[in-house]
Amino acid sequence: MSLHEDMLAMGDRALAAARALADLHSRRKNNILHAMADELEKRREQIKGENRKDMDEAESAGLSPALLDRLLLTDGRIEAMVRGIRAVADLRDPIGARISRWIRPNGLEIVKRRVPIGVIAIIYESRPNVTADTSALCLKTSNAVILRGGTEAIHSNVAIAEALLDGGRRRGMPEDALQVVRTTDREAVREIARMEGRVDLVIPRGGEELIRAVSEAALVPVIKHYKGICHVYVDQSADLEMALRIAENAKCQRPGVCNAMETLLVHAGVAREFLPRLAARLTALGVELRGNPAARALAPDMKEATEEDWSTEYLDLILSVRVVPNLAAAVEHIARYGSRHSDAIVAEDEAAQAEFTHKVDSAAVYVNASTRFTDGGEFGMGAEIGISTDKLHARGPMGLEELTTYKYVIYGKGQIRE
Amino acid sequence: MSLHEDMLAMGDRALAAARALADLHSRRKNNILHAMADELEKRREQIKGENRKDMDEAESAGLSPALLDRLLLTDGRIEAMVRGIRAVADLRDPIGARISRWIRPNGLEIVKRRVPIGVIAIIYESRPNVTADTSALCLKTSNAVILRGGTEAIHSNVAIAEALLDGGRRRGMPEDALQVVRTTDREAVREIARMEGRVDLVIPRGGEELIRAVSEAALVPVIKHYKGICHVYVDQSADLEMALRIAENAKCQRPGVCNAMETLLVHAGVAREFLPRLAARLTALGVELRGNPAARALAPDMKEATEEDWSTEYLDLILSVRVVPNLAAAVEHIARYGSRHSDAIVAEDEAAQAEFTHKVDSAAVYVNASTRFTDGGEFGMGAEIGISTDKLHARGPMGLEELTTYKYVIYGKGQIRE
Repeated sequence: MSLHEDMLAMGDRALAAARALADLHSRRKNNILHAMADELEKRREQIKGENRKDMDEAESAGLSPALLDRLLLTDGRIEAMVRGIRAVADLRDPIGARISRWIRPNGLEIVKRRVPIGVIAIIYESRPNVTADTSALCLKTSNAVILRGGTEAIHSNVAIAEALLDGGRRRGMPEDALQVVRTTDREAVREIARMEGRVDLVIPRGGEELIRAVSEAALVPVIKHYKGICHVYVDQSADLEMALRIAENAKCQRPGVCNAMETLLVHAGVAREFLPRLAARLTALGVELRGNPAARALAPDMKEATEEDWSTEYLDLILSVRVVPNLAAAVEHIARYGSRHSDAIVAEDEAAQAEFTHKVDSAAVYVNASTRFTDGGEFGMGAEIGISTDKLHARGPMGLEELTTYKYVIYGKGQIRE
Repeated sequence: MSLHEDMLAMGDRALAAARALADLHSRRKNNILHAMADELEKRREQIKGENRKDMDEAESAGLSPALLDRLLLTDGRIEAMVRGIRAVADLRDPIGARISRWIRPNGLEIVKRRVPIGVIAIIYESRPNVTADTSALCLKTSNAVILRGGTEAIHSNVAIAEALLDGGRRRGMPEDALQVVRTTDREAVREIARMEGRVDLVIPRGGEELIRAVSEAALVPVIKHYKGICHVYVDQSADLEMALRIAENAKCQRPGVCNAMETLLVHAGVAREFLPRLAARLTALGVELRGNPAARALAPDMKEATEEDWSTEYLDLILSVRVVPNLAAAVEHIARYGSRHSDAIVAEDEAAQAEFTHKVDSAAVYVNASTRFTDGGEFGMGAEIGISTDKLHARGPMGLEELTTYKYVIYGKGQIRE
């Protein structure tokens, strides 16, 4: 069979599994989830052995320490996957819930009901825990899932998926509810993204290049998880102690993630007081600062920020800093260079807060809090499959509800249209 | 300027307009809508004159009578556009509404708020009223709109859009909130669908070929409005009088639309009693019937249905008819040949109703009512921009709410992530 035929067959199996999944009640799904977790726990040593193969190959291929760290599975990380699956089992099942209901003048009763999306394909890189997390979320929402992880993690991903499958099937998980693409051929990604009628949604998670390649090829709807160029704007009315604390947290608490701050905008009216303190505090924590001329005039140790800096996601201890004349200029900067992910204002003035939250068009807009809170767990969703930077269907953290769609069920007594 | 540069510039203007639209309050938007309606009314003769040019060209080009009829603007049709715009003004403005709100244990207050999508592009064919309808819906939801109608309707579309623009601008509608693509170059459609960062959503409305071309080219999210292959299934438990009435309505009341029935499925247990009556009734109304062997055995005047018939959207007085052994076979048929648009069961048995509504994965699933009710107006949405056959973001009739997205606004008191 050609790759094309292989993938179509995989899509057909996923479709059949999706229909079988729609018949499972919540309790059955939760039993399956716990059985998946049990089996994962039981196979810890075997999974670490398979992960060792990936690590060895990655080391000889010369992957960076950061990537090696993302790939590594430890007892603690496997335990976290197990806990994650059990946590998903404990969440409320959104499927079947009535979203709304109304009766028309002609007597038709319209019920809008939450249903699974169907078949979801996840294209991801590096971190093998995504295999367990997304399988659990898709199972809970009665969606069949096709997993296409990174080549560098193939042994780990297959070992994890097999544990989940063997555990789940013992409790009645439909055959093919969870399928792993085992070929490392890049063409498989393109095939998946073009399987209209078999795949209902593709979620690419990873680098910009991967996401762009999927969007470019796709006929199937895609929810993109692009980068986060997140801003903190310190208003003239800011509590400067709070601003220092939020800036430090947004930049330093975990710089390698999409909700970390990349650019700090400071109102000119407080820059003289604020910037030297900020520079001292962040420099002491190892942060490299790159400023516009007005910023550098107040904190001379800063490097000069180039035009490119404003649209760079550093994912590192680097921060670009711009002094702006007013709030409108901050909003303008965010519209021009931001990625519509997470942006914050630090301000005591309520008019400034209102203007910022109204005008900044991002998934999450914060008043007096760190951008680092954009996360399914922190939002109280219990789990997340990622953070959408798209505006359609799901925006920001995607939890269980965002993995569902709806249908209208209409009850009549023989009504016809006049 | 090249077409590419032209379109990018149009996208930039739309972005600027979208930001200006976000500042308009509901009352201002409603005033703009009424001014648009006033101006359209005032220019009725001029618009009919421009429409005459399109009609003349279409007639010499030999367009079919059905297409000519879709293109024609009469006093009545212009009046309907005017009424439609005023009706949209009367609807509740969804923008700014609080969808939900909760407080996290750390004190963060999360508010999920409804906001405009931004820039929406509509690609459509033939009917010039789409120009007015979609402009009104987009204005009401504070979205900037880029309109690309069919070449055959270019004079009519431009005349309508200019009336709307001149009317709206007098009441403060932002420049470029509504832009018409005036070139008839097909490449413009491709450009629009690839304007990531400038266009947030593309909605193709029209033939399958158009929709496929847009999906194929698109980098921007697309909500597809594909065909409707709608089924009515007559169960063994059906009230046969009701089944006859629903079948006649679903097929004949307006055969040329996407929510009309194309295939009738009949349980073998009632086929002998039902089919001859159905055949007599529909044949008298001019419907051509095409059946499977079991159906033809009971109503011998039917032609033989080919495999192709089951997946054909006739949009005409033709009906394919299949006798099925049971409900499961009907569900299977719909899964295989349907288009996930609208499907109905006629049954008195509640278990059969429940199984059908649970298992049929369509935007609208009816119990004892005609499929013809799948429509924004009939659902009580007040207006619709179309009927989505996609499962993501919007499914079924798309009204005002479906033209919005949301953002999270998070209020803190200096919270940082530990």
